[in-house]
Amino acid sequence: MELIFLGTSSAVPSKHRNHASIALKAFGEVMMFDCGEGTQRQLANAKISPMKIDKVFLSHLHGDHILGLPGLIQSMGFRGRVEPLHIYGPKGISRLNEIISQFGYFTINFPIEIHELVEGKILESDDYIIECVKTKHNVYNLSYSVYEKKKPRFLKEKAIELGVKPGPDFGKLHDGFELKVGEKIISPEQVLGKKRHGHKIVYSGDTKPCKAMIEFAKEATVLIHESTYKTEDEIKATNNFHSTSKQAAKIAKEANVKKLILTHISTRYTNIDDLKKEAIEVFENSKVAYDFMNLKL
Amino acid sequence: MELIFLGTSSAVPSKHRNHASIALKAFGEVMMFDCGEGTQRQLANAKISPMKIDKVFLSHLHGDHILGLPGLIQSMGFRGRVEPLHIYGPKGISRLNEIISQFGYFTINFPIEIHELVEGKILESDDYIIECVKTKHNVYNLSYSVYEKKKPRFLKEKAIELGVKPGPDFGKLHDGFELKVGEKIISPEQVLGKKRHGHKIVYSGDTKPCKAMIEFAKEATVLIHESTYKTEDEIKATNNFHSTSKQAAKIAKEANVKKLILTHISTRYTNIDDLKKEAIEVFENSKVAYDFMNLKL
Repeated sequence: MELIFLGTSSAVPSKHRNHASIALKAFGEVMMFDCGEGTQRQLANAKISPMKIDKVFLSHLHGDHILGLPGLIQSMGFRGRVEPLHIYGPKGISRLNEIISQFGYFTINFPIEIHELVEGKILESDDYIIECVKTKHNVYNLSYSVYEKKKPRFLKEKAIELGVKPGPDFGKLHDGFELKVGEKIISPEQVLGKKRHGHKIVYSGDTKPCKAMIEFAKEATVLIHESTYKTEDEIKATNNFHSTSKQAAKIAKEANVKKLILTHISTRYTNIDDLKKEAIEVFENSKVAYDFMNLKL
Repeated sequence: MELIFLGTSSAVPSKHRNHASIALKAFGEVMMFDCGEGTQRQLANAKISPMKIDKVFLSHLHGDHILGLPGLIQSMGFRGRVEPLHIYGPKGISRLNEIISQFGYFTINFPIEIHELVEGKILESDDYIIECVKTKHNVYNLSYSVYEKKKPRFLKEKAIELGVKPGPDFGKLHDGFELKVGEKIISPEQVLGKKRHGHKIVYSGDTKPCKAMIEFAKEATVLIHESTYKTEDEIKATNNFHSTSKQAAKIAKEANVKKLILTHISTRYTNIDDLKKEAIEVFENSKVAYDFMNLKL
């Protein structure tokens, strides 16, 4: 699994920070979280083909999180895409496709499926579960979690002992299917180790610190939390429904996550080290994201 | 006068080329020609405040020329803009404001005046005349010209000879007003030199080579012409209603312009020197634009 931070600024971009967008390379695909203006160019610079993206998750419908969508969709069209693109997001998202298609001359030759979400489980595959929860911004904001389903270890020797032949039968049992060996039925439980926890990645979108986020981020491997402001600007953060670095760190601590990545940094701050210091005082394993930062899990 | 090339790619951006946009610093303001995705960030990098832009001229309504507008407008709003923004463009532009304002949560606190243009003179001030002409793209495309009105030289010694006192009276006469000196009426013609030609800047937008452009660009100081393709891809250029570098150079030659700047370069070409060479063979004073290229006139 690999997280690539395509844009880490807040409302206004700077020389070194583009608008919000994060790519997750995992499970043989690339998922995108938010898509601020200029994201297609950031993808090109990060050498990620837009054709590998089938799912875009939008936290909320503020421009700095969505204005890269029309250009991304056009780029996909130029490349001859035929596969559908799924766009997930909060209440109000259902008209997005219609609005984009009215924006100048716009031809979309592939299906765009818009999914208006409510809290809870969004998707489940053999490999992952994706969930969302409503958090506290001045417009409807969804935070997302991606939970990797990790299979228990396969106990090879035990399987051989039970008469299972190495090869495809090992796979069947590992995938959770029973197997007939002679007259005996071997159940997966007989040849599998303990339940294992996969990685859990949580992305806040834009939000004030809130209890819902603590619950939602519990035991996450990585919490990517917005940190628009420094502690000295806490009043501004509160008024604008954003978080400070310290507040994000408190969430990380209370949720007992492994790693905190701060993002959505206001371009008013030139000294980013201060944000990191403030977070580390509360939660040690804190880092400030930068554009094209690559985090391998 | 200063031309700043903010974006010089065609449909798809690359590491070094953003989508189409050109800023003209002149007459105490900044005019913008086209506004592709990511233009607000290019402006920040070029250290041009969006607050200085009062007029945006759009050549046509393809995404790579307009998708930076919503973000630019939002940025202006964040900075507390109250002055109106004028957006000029071809047929179909009148709904632009309505479409942008539906795109997510969008609050615009300043007036946006949309001007749907027909060919001819658009604006005239004491300092300049702006005109447009329809050229040949697969959608309605307008090419623009900015003509600088240059005052004749003021003949100081002649004015003193005629009894005019140095100071504000010089300015009045230079501005074309008559002046009473004692019993005599001094007319501006008595103290002004020959008529002078100001700079003429022409920007093509997206177009095939066409006669209308030759007429329109006649004697221009600078012709900024699209050159999406190399000569070897002339068939593609024709099919897509674009120009090759050689075709752009022929226009420059026939219009007898002083300088040709090629822009809107397809990102398929890594060797830009070839485009320049092809143009120079036809018209010597040719140059290929690059992002943040600054041309002082």
